[in-house]
Amino acid sequence: MIDINKAIASLNWQKEPRGLYEPIEYALASGGKRLRPTLALTAAELIVNGGLINGDAIEQTLPAALALEVFHNFTLLHDDVMDHADVRRGKETVHVKWNENTAILSGDQMLIEAYKLLSDVPVDKLPKVLKWFNEMATGICEGQQLDVDFEHMSQPSIDDYMHMIELKTSVLLANAMRIGGYIAGANESQQEALYQYGLHIGLAFQIQDDILDVYGDPKTFGKAVGGDICCNKKTILLLTALETADPESKAELLQWLMAKDCNEEKIAAVTEIYNRLGVRASCETVMEEHTSLALAQLDRLPQNDATERLRELAEKLATRKS
Amino acid sequence: MIDINKAIASLNWQKEPRGLYEPIEYALASGGKRLRPTLALTAAELIVNGGLINGDAIEQTLPAALALEVFHNFTLLHDDVMDHADVRRGKETVHVKWNENTAILSGDQMLIEAYKLLSDVPVDKLPKVLKWFNEMATGICEGQQLDVDFEHMSQPSIDDYMHMIELKTSVLLANAMRIGGYIAGANESQQEALYQYGLHIGLAFQIQDDILDVYGDPKTFGKAVGGDICCNKKTILLLTALETADPESKAELLQWLMAKDCNEEKIAAVTEIYNRLGVRASCETVMEEHTSLALAQLDRLPQNDATERLRELAEKLATRKS
Repeated sequence: MIDINKAIASLNWQKEPRGLYEPIEYALASGGKRLRPTLALTAAELIVNGGLINGDAIEQTLPAALALEVFHNFTLLHDDVMDHADVRRGKETVHVKWNENTAILSGDQMLIEAYKLLSDVPVDKLPKVLKWFNEMATGICEGQQLDVDFEHMSQPSIDDYMHMIELKTSVLLANAMRIGGYIAGANESQQEALYQYGLHIGLAFQIQDDILDVYGDPKTFGKAVGGDICCNKKTILLLTALETADPESKAELLQWLMAKDCNEEKIAAVTEIYNRLGVRASCETVMEEHTSLALAQLDRLPQNDATERLRELAEKLATRKS
Repeated sequence: MIDINKAIASLNWQKEPRGLYEPIEYALASGGKRLRPTLALTAAELIVNGGLINGDAIEQTLPAALALEVFHNFTLLHDDVMDHADVRRGKETVHVKWNENTAILSGDQMLIEAYKLLSDVPVDKLPKVLKWFNEMATGICEGQQLDVDFEHMSQPSIDDYMHMIELKTSVLLANAMRIGGYIAGANESQQEALYQYGLHIGLAFQIQDDILDVYGDPKTFGKAVGGDICCNKKTILLLTALETADPESKAELLQWLMAKDCNEEKIAAVTEIYNRLGVRASCETVMEEHTSLALAQLDRLPQNDATERLRELAEKLATRKS
């Protein structure tokens, strides 16, 4: 079993110039769930254990798994600059600890480092992995742009929202699964099942994120509850409320959205409107649908320890408290 | 003969979301010398015409040539953000026409687009091309960081300067030559000669750039002369002056470097010190050495029209006025 944290820690950033590589080391040492490389390696394990396939295949998946984690952290560096976010995983963000130019340039280098890791994918698998990786990276940039556009739209539809989070979050998890499985020898129908699993847990994950931002327990959630309400973020909760509200509730909600200042009163009032409209239950239903769709994919795949872990992961994501 | 401008113009950016792709289209339509893709295609032509090699090889070089141009323009987008540059090729820079976040995100997407183009390199050549491209991209980020570090050093050596411009400018030209030649079938010693040619014209080009910033004819140079002197930029002229000056001239020069304000008087005075110390001639000697080294590489390669054009290019770069 590969220890992904150890593998990430063993990447060498002791290179010159320090101004370029030190922020990369800092960003990658900040922890996080390591969800993407774990998915890639678990997909590989699932395929290897499910057939008479060369056991080295899991090892061969490691460079791509690391590339996914480095890529993910590159997006965080640049997103934090664009969002003016000061804190990430309880630590100062790179552009705060250093400066914006550093976050831009070290971020660029991380994207290049991801491709460097990718170049260690077995040669016969490289063209397809590179193609998928590029598609995934493109999806994430497009999703980020849609997210920006979103904030300027008066009332995007829930479909628009689902499309945006699919690109912004899900394609990375979907490709982590597919790339991991493919390198380990998955056939086409297995690749598709792995991809769909990643896609649907991504959607479920993002919806749950929106729900927790309002209904999370402040003790376990890790950040202040109500942040999305405060900044009028167009979450699935808000869009559901706007789509389903009676005229009176809608007017009341829009009134609160006009408020520039944010305070406890606004958070309480908007939450009360959500409660009245049953927004939480609607969103939980959508989330559970995606969790079910993810779980259904696993039934199409070999059954072993890895499959079981993916099943637990999908269930855990849907019931997580933080 | 491939028309590189036409090939660049035929890249499709009519995609959604427009906020992501329109700035890419704008940046790539802004012209420029198209030096990097031209080098790659000329290297390919040199090799193909020099042997009994499949004529399709030049066509096969096109995706990599385009990748190099898209990559180069990615670096310009991010550099212009980092340098707060408002104008590029006579037009507003992307972060001025749109905003900084757009320049960051569309720039990221351009880097990804470069790798997308690269994935069309013939499969048997892909691993090496990807490896070189990654090395090149890393060199440029390292060079950019060294350039930042440079401005905080009191008196970097001329060797430091040469190392910095090698990474910042030359490795891209060197790899354009090597990648173009390799895809067309160059053997190892040819690859090395092509690489060294690109490296040395890059160094000569950058040194000439520094010289023109002081000694260019304002009518043909295209920008105001003396900009580097104004902002105390550590060019090879300034470093040569600091290294070779007598104590009196050095004191006078350092006095001018202390001046925060910039005016015609400062430009004239520093230029006069350069003249007195013979800085221009010293730098021209270094530039000519690199031009000669570049030309010498061409003698190790097949002789044909393409070789002749590369010879003319090296000579033109060294005598250019703008």
